[in-house]
Parts: sequence; C-alpha cells; structure tokens
Amino acid sequence: MENQRQTPRRRGRPPKSRADLSDTRELLLRAGLEVLTEKGFAATGIDEILGRVGVPKGSFYHYFESKEAFGLQLITRYGDFFAKKLDRHLCNTTLRPLERLRAFVSDAMDGMARHDYRRGCLIGNLGQEMGALPESFRAHLKKTFFDWQERFAACLLEAQNIGELSAEAKPYQVAEFFWIGWEGAVLRAKLEQSAAPLELFATFFFVSLPKG
Amino acid sequence: MENQRQTPRRRGRPPKSRADLSDTRELLLRAGLEVLTEKGFAATGIDEILGRVGVPKGSFYHYFESKEAFGLQLITRYGDFFAKKLDRHLCNTTLRPLERLRAFVSDAMDGMARHDYRRGCLIGNLGQEMGALPESFRAHLKKTFFDWQERFAACLLEAQNIGELSAEAKPYQVAEFFWIGWEGAVLRAKLEQSAAPLELFATFFFVSLPKG
Repeated sequence: MENQRQTPRRRGRPPKSRADLSDTRELLLRAGLEVLTEKGFAATGIDEILGRVGVPKGSFYHYFESKEAFGLQLITRYGDFFAKKLDRHLCNTTLRPLERLRAFVSDAMDGMARHDYRRGCLIGNLGQEMGALPESFRAHLKKTFFDWQERFAACLLEAQNIGELSAEAKPYQVAEFFWIGWEGAVLRAKLEQSAAPLELFATFFFVSLPKG
Repeated sequence: MENQRQTPRRRGRPPKSRADLSDTRELLLRAGLEVLTEKGFAATGIDEILGRVGVPKGSFYHYFESKEAFGLQLITRYGDFFAKKLDRHLCNTTLRPLERLRAFVSDAMDGMARHDYRRGCLIGNLGQEMGALPESFRAHLKKTFFDWQERFAACLLEAQNIGELSAEAKPYQVAEFFWIGWEGAVLRAKLEQSAAPLELFATFFFVSLPKG
C-alpha cells in the first residue's frame, strides 16, 4: 500500500564509491517494495528489480548478501513505513481515538486506490507465501504484525479510557481481529480490483465494536 | 485445507491408453492441490508436481494444455471440494443454522490442523498472487468466493427466518464479511503455525452477529 516515488533509471557498472553504493542500494530497496507488494517474493526475479533500477544483471551481490537478506531488509523497511503511517493517525490527538482509527483505514484505502488495487501489503503477501520462503522471514513477519497490532491496541485503549469503547472489550484482541481481517480485505481488494472489500470489512469492524 | 490422501509414486513413460491418461491426470491434479495450497502458484515448478507423481519431466503437456489450464482445473476442483464441505454442514437440518456455520468453521480448522497449518486455502493463495498470475484466473477465483458466500448467505437467511439473526442484518453482506476475514485468518494461521488466528476471528465473527 506504499506510495513509492518513481525512481530514475540508472545504467552502467556497479559503483565504486561508498556513496554510490548506498544510493544504488536505496534504489534497489525501493524497486523491491514496488514489485513485491504487487507480485510477492517467489514470482519476482532479482533481474527484474535490477532492471528497474538500471543496474547490470549479476551485480546484485555488490549490494546485498543474498535474496534472503534483501527480503529481510524489505520487511523491516515496510514495517517501519507502516508504523509511521499508523502513528501519524493514531497519535493525532486532535481527533477522538476511534476517528483516528478510521483516518488510518481511509489513508490505507487511498494507498491501494492510488495503485489501482495492484499493490497489496508486503507483510500479507509474504505471510501468504511463507510455505515457499526462507524460514527466517517468519519471525520478522510475525513481529511486524505484532507491532502494528500494539499501536492499534494503544489507540483502542484510549477509546476505552474516554468511554468510546466498552470497558469489557480487550483492546489487543480487537486489534488482532482488525489486522487478521484487514489483510483478508487487502487480498480481496487486489483480486476484485476494487475498494468494496476494504469498505465492507471496515464498516463491519467499526459497527461491531462494543460501545462504551 | 483439503485432506488429500497420499498418492502412490508412479514411474515410467507417459501412458498410452486413455484410462492411464485420465488416471495420471487425476494424480497430477491431486499433487497440484497439495503443493499449491502450501506454496502457491509462482513458487511451484511443474517438475515438482510431476516428480511427486513419478511422471517423467517434460511429459506434463501429455496431460494438460498449459500450466494455466492446469491452474484453472485446480481452482474448479478446489472450489467444488469446498462447496461440498459447505453443503455438508450448512444443509444439515439436524442443527440450527448458526450451529451449522460453527460446524463448518470447526471442520475447516481441523483441516488446517491436520496439515500442521502448512496448507492454506488455494483460492486465497492464488487471490493473493493475482498480480503474477494469468489474468484468466481472476474471474474464476472471484466466482469461487461468490459461490461460497452464497451458500453461507443462504444459511444466514435461514438463521434470520427462525429469529437467530436480526431481521435487519443483510445475509449476503455478512457472508462476504466472513469470507473476507476468514481468508485473512487462514493466512495468519499459516504464518503463526497455530489455530489461534482462526479461533479469534471466528469468535469475534459470531459474537458480532446482530441477534434476532
């Protein structure tokens, strides 16, 4: 769901200087996020990512130790990107807590619309593919969901504290329910190339919250 | 989530007779379901499926026109398999309608446990991978979800008719909400190798149903 800027095409040999190296590494990570949010890991060849950035085939290992190491960096980067997006909305005290959650959902929906529902969630894509991925990915993917759920739960706790959410609700479980279902909604939005599954899931989620 | 029987290994040349041909095709379809529910389409090589059945490499096209045609047959087969599973529970008039839905959920959970949460849902896996799949898959995957949702909705309508579900609930939308979220739960159950995400989603789903 990330809004990646277009990166310029670069051609030529692998760079010599440290600055060029880190610049190209950055471009490769951005291209990786673009391609993997759309197609997943297994379907993506390293050559495709190198081609997008204009880096010569075969020079991938100048920048990353392995495709696995590259994948782990993408998970961290995407997790951080979304954590920041969550914080931007969920820590916005000018809104009431449940309104902040709605604002986040609306922002995430805009992100999918911007890419015509072609790009999903990197963490959901890789979670789905886990059966074919390096085992080291599993802990990182789980940790990312747990992190997002904790941020969501903290906002639900605030909602509870001001009486927007029932005192009997369990914020962390509600947050887990949201993220479990939301990833299903992202999957369906990609399949149907439409916002409808996201809207339907979000509507039911907010209606079903036990009121304070 | 399908419970596939172990198929015997077969070796040798492609079969000559029509009976052998359809027998081997059947074994290839079963092996395909086993591998694709676990790893998805992009990560699965035709050779791996041929190897499981003991069919010589390169002879795939004796049995199927293309990997695409093979995939479409797998979607149909898996869709039908699950439609039968749904009917077995949702048409069981010895239970009240909502109990039938719970029985289906419990059966689907048993299916995942039986394979140690390695195998997910073929339709969910391919839906997630749509960005890298032949475009012809999209309509078939959508149709499969719509079919499952209709069966689910018919049972919810029965629940409504006997007052188990609020007259104001919209059965088809509730069914859509279930399937959107359930696929997210299957994804997380695979990632976490645990029943917990399935249980959590199902618990919240049933609790949130507006009562009659």
